[in-house]
Amino acid sequence: MKITHLDIDVDQWLGALGCAIRNKRKELGLSQEELAHLIQIDRSHMGRIERGERNLTFANILKISAGLKCSPSALLMLAGL
Amino acid sequence: MKITHLDIDVDQWLGALGCAIRNKRKELGLSQEELAHLIQIDRSHMGRIERGERNLTFANILKISAGLKCSPSALLMLAGL
Repeated sequence: MKITHLDIDVDQWLGALGCAIRNKRKELGLSQEELAHLIQIDRSHMGRIERGERNLTFANILKISAGLKCSPSALLMLAGL
Repeated sequence: MKITHLDIDVDQWLGALGCAIRNKRKELGLSQEELAHLIQIDRSHMGRIERGERNLTFANILKISAGLKCSPSALLMLAGL
């Protein structure tokens, strides 16, 4: 999804956020399944989030950053946001 | 909505984010209507976001921060996240 008038490529940024989540998860030595279980998000949904396929909600950003033991703003910064 | 096992009060943080958006908007001298029009979000939806009543999506966080001329991570930091 492109937001042309604001020159924002949402898909690109969803991909970057997914990579940041995956890298941070691996840094903590967590499997995708362990992180999904820890924060009570369905594992396949977690996989789609990491692949940048889901326009995740603010609540899920809070959950994921809590599970990765970093602040939501720090997680976004890891994604270059 | 509380995420008890992670000790996260989503509503509290949605409220804090809404306040940060409102404060930044006012700092820029924008009305709610002007910001909503600029980023092509329905004005009443914008009002509910500012009141912390909507679990907004990542795409809307990108739009709102672009409209407020700050990075998404900076916007979250303004909310204490």
